[in-house]
Amino acid sequence: MADVTSDMIKELREKTQAGMLDCKKALVEVDGDMDKAVEMLRKKGLASATKKMGREASEGIIASYIHSNMKIGVLLELRTVTDFVARNEDFQNLAKELSMQIAAANPLYINIEDVPAEDIEKEREIYREQMKDSGKPENVIEKIVEGKLSKYYSDVCLLEQEYIKDPKVRIKDLIKEKIAIYGENIEVGKFSRFQIG
Amino acid sequence: MADVTSDMIKELREKTQAGMLDCKKALVEVDGDMDKAVEMLRKKGLASATKKMGREASEGIIASYIHSNMKIGVLLELRTVTDFVARNEDFQNLAKELSMQIAAANPLYINIEDVPAEDIEKEREIYREQMKDSGKPENVIEKIVEGKLSKYYSDVCLLEQEYIKDPKVRIKDLIKEKIAIYGENIEVGKFSRFQIG
Repeated sequence: MADVTSDMIKELREKTQAGMLDCKKALVEVDGDMDKAVEMLRKKGLASATKKMGREASEGIIASYIHSNMKIGVLLELRTVTDFVARNEDFQNLAKELSMQIAAANPLYINIEDVPAEDIEKEREIYREQMKDSGKPENVIEKIVEGKLSKYYSDVCLLEQEYIKDPKVRIKDLIKEKIAIYGENIEVGKFSRFQIG
Repeated sequence: MADVTSDMIKELREKTQAGMLDCKKALVEVDGDMDKAVEMLRKKGLASATKKMGREASEGIIASYIHSNMKIGVLLELRTVTDFVARNEDFQNLAKELSMQIAAANPLYINIEDVPAEDIEKEREIYREQMKDSGKPENVIEKIVEGKLSKYYSDVCLLEQEYIKDPKVRIKDLIKEKIAIYGENIEVGKFSRFQIG
């Protein structure tokens, strides 16, 4: 018999809008398998087929930026803890700035942690290959490789990028500054960037 | 030895901005494997690490819609064949309407063809299960199942949805109408929809 925690019941309720008892029963019956529990509740007609799965938990806002030529567009989710901060105009300006940053500097990830390990290894390999005929000692090469990797992160990770309007500032510092002002965590939840041509 | 076509060379050039001869040589060397060719050119320092892969081929625009509460946002790529149509204000209004549609009606896919086959099978199973004690004959049940499936498509597929501003019109008809007017194909390339809470 699987452990059915109250967190699981809560998650299932959010996903299906079914009652607490129904959710608990379903979870116990399928041994805690969330997907099966959703399916079971839907089969019983208690959950709606088109009800959206996996809703975002926190507060925040959605912002967008469309470049003037309409060929580049960005959608951004900027999260906060309270709706009070989300309604703050200065916070909304931050979301706008970040959207413009993404449009201009085209990051692929939010954090360094989001870069797939195999991509990092591939980068390292490429840098080593580029230097293999340099005649430099191994430990020097490794230092250069790590330096190039830092540069790579500051190209592809939003938080590591230089702010387009002030290259002395990194995006993560821009956000940290606001966190200090509001006294509340701010996180880039996700972003999309579309480009034509 | 693999066939290296001029299309492949063109694709590799677009991906890496390397010269034609370098691209051809790389492709021949790796037996036409595009990913390996990109990697090889990058190792040779001919291609830039952050150069974006897989650019969109066609013309079109990027549009967005942010709901007034800033809790729902949509980013949309609407494609055309010529930039002439993309610059048309009426076309840009269509992109805006579609973005609002997505914000309001929350489709999960663009086309019926985009719905994963296993999801369709799962839906069918659920509908059958709901009716198994109905006493109806099998062929009647199957007809009802297909009817429910149509309803499901019109919930989850943008092109099958009813236009929020005129439920008599399906989104695909709205687009077809514009195709007839401009005499040029129009396609929803992709969309993102973010929602807080």
